[in-house]
Amino acid sequence: MKVPLSCGAWALGFCLTFGIASFLRAAEDDALLKDARSIFAALPANFATAQRPITPALVELGRALFFDPRMSIDSTTSCARCHQPSLYGTDALAKSHGNHDRLNARNAPTVINAALQVKQHWTGNREDVEDQATKALTGPASFGNPNFDVPMARLKAIAGYQPMFKAAFPNDPNPITPENWGKAIGAYERTLVSRSRFDEFLGGKLDALSADERQGLRTFITTGCVACHNGIGVGGGEFKKFGVVEDYWKLTGSQDIDEGRALDTKKVEDKSLFKVPTLRNVAMTGPYFHDGSVASLEAAVRIAAKAQLGQTLGDNEVHDIVAFLGSLTGPLPENFATAPVLPAER
Amino acid sequence: MKVPLSCGAWALGFCLTFGIASFLRAAEDDALLKDARSIFAALPANFATAQRPITPALVELGRALFFDPRMSIDSTTSCARCHQPSLYGTDALAKSHGNHDRLNARNAPTVINAALQVKQHWTGNREDVEDQATKALTGPASFGNPNFDVPMARLKAIAGYQPMFKAAFPNDPNPITPENWGKAIGAYERTLVSRSRFDEFLGGKLDALSADERQGLRTFITTGCVACHNGIGVGGGEFKKFGVVEDYWKLTGSQDIDEGRALDTKKVEDKSLFKVPTLRNVAMTGPYFHDGSVASLEAAVRIAAKAQLGQTLGDNEVHDIVAFLGSLTGPLPENFATAPVLPAER
Repeated sequence: MKVPLSCGAWALGFCLTFGIASFLRAAEDDALLKDARSIFAALPANFATAQRPITPALVELGRALFFDPRMSIDSTTSCARCHQPSLYGTDALAKSHGNHDRLNARNAPTVINAALQVKQHWTGNREDVEDQATKALTGPASFGNPNFDVPMARLKAIAGYQPMFKAAFPNDPNPITPENWGKAIGAYERTLVSRSRFDEFLGGKLDALSADERQGLRTFITTGCVACHNGIGVGGGEFKKFGVVEDYWKLTGSQDIDEGRALDTKKVEDKSLFKVPTLRNVAMTGPYFHDGSVASLEAAVRIAAKAQLGQTLGDNEVHDIVAFLGSLTGPLPENFATAPVLPAER
Repeated sequence: MKVPLSCGAWALGFCLTFGIASFLRAAEDDALLKDARSIFAALPANFATAQRPITPALVELGRALFFDPRMSIDSTTSCARCHQPSLYGTDALAKSHGNHDRLNARNAPTVINAALQVKQHWTGNREDVEDQATKALTGPASFGNPNFDVPMARLKAIAGYQPMFKAAFPNDPNPITPENWGKAIGAYERTLVSRSRFDEFLGGKLDALSADERQGLRTFITTGCVACHNGIGVGGGEFKKFGVVEDYWKLTGSQDIDEGRALDTKKVEDKSLFKVPTLRNVAMTGPYFHDGSVASLEAAVRIAAKAQLGQTLGDNEVHDIVAFLGSLTGPLPENFATAPVLPAER
């Protein structure tokens, strides 16, 4: 076969150009991975700690309790009411409704990958998932009990729970306590881990992210989002003022101005401080921000860049960042997606 | 080895007696199976009919819709709010709470094996599961919408549902309608079949039931419970006055007297008529009766025998009947126990 010289030269040029471009892209991706590894970390198998250990019996008990509404004052509210498996551990509401339709002060964050966070709740007024679960029993807008005696009496009346508490707390002669309720549910939540393609990328598999997603990751880093959204949770590690550059309520259209952490600490320097939310599974857990005031992820990305960094993102930047955030969606943990059978009352 | 004559004779007598007793028991069990087969029937693989066919796409859509709260007026109420997988398709409440904490008039029956019934709702004012699902959209105490436009507009706004409706209704140019909502959820409910050990027994496996359970089945037949609780559902096939012999509210302690089917039909002869509930999974679906006024299955069995048959059951009879009813508990259907991932809003 005869190939015209011009064509051969063109092919050579093409190959060289393409080869160099590929080489450069590969080098860029290696650099991106290196950067990413210095900022983020892959999820562990579970969130157990030395102080908060997990056992199969503890997790099994906690899983049942998580789904049981009978310990709320009107027997309508389980943890799963506001943290529904089908909605990725949220309720898709701006603010959750608890017992007697009482409105919670803030948006319900997902329970998936939640235990990794520095504290619980938007203002960090719960130490950890165990503390959150115990205090929810008497939370006015959650379980609504006037004291711990009411839910503990109910728990004790359901015979099927007795062997489960016994197995979960073998050395405890009277294991049905508010603290153990929290320990069991907390242990369960420490197993709700949802690893995503981003974890594969961090593990070294460069093509676990698409070109758009990698570009989004680059933009996410260069724009400065990573100043707050970093670590294992891509957030969840610290408290920051929401509205560093511009008041958030002017951007979000929030109806009420929430003083955030200052409401708990009574310190003026904590005004408008909120926990930086983890962005894992963020594409599945709208609406956004502490008051659920923003419905779309695109809008939330624009507002966060504006309020926190003073940056007005272009459409391509928003598109790429949203693509990257989509790579943080993992599968529903199997022991969250599958309902436990609760002991029947006798 | 020498065996004293007296001992040999004793052994012979024992063997004969034991053999005859076994033979008689086996004959009794065969007769019981024959009786049971003339009264009951095993569950089919699903409850599809020629008029109400099912396809995988229809069932998949219906399963998502069943778990989605966003189409209720306050976005808190999905079908699964009152029909929770963990509670065997009930909410363990005497009467369910729907949107804005509104109280339903009656107890929420399980959705498992529900499609087999002659009609839906305690008073039969819903033709079938499809009709029930459609009308729930505007039910004041369930989804609470003022009309069908509100929930249909919400459905259309969730982009992820569009291909699902398209796949479920391939010949329908505008498939997002209240009727198709009902058809999809109904198709899903027609797959919620939970076969139990009693079905194995009816299939000829005598020892699928324990001796107590077989005795309970005998008592259930001879007491006359089967006059109403018969067929595939062990109930669910007809309407009967609750309180044939004695007013039910005097036995149950019901706070309100419910006129039952007469409220719908306006006929005096329908006063106190309710659908005979299916007893499948009854051990898992308390509290009992149309108003959830009775917490324990033992008490419910005693009251039903007294109110309907004028019989005062002894403790052994109650024990055996409750044992038999326990054999009607099947596993949670897998596509009920496993949460679907709902399309996120955009």
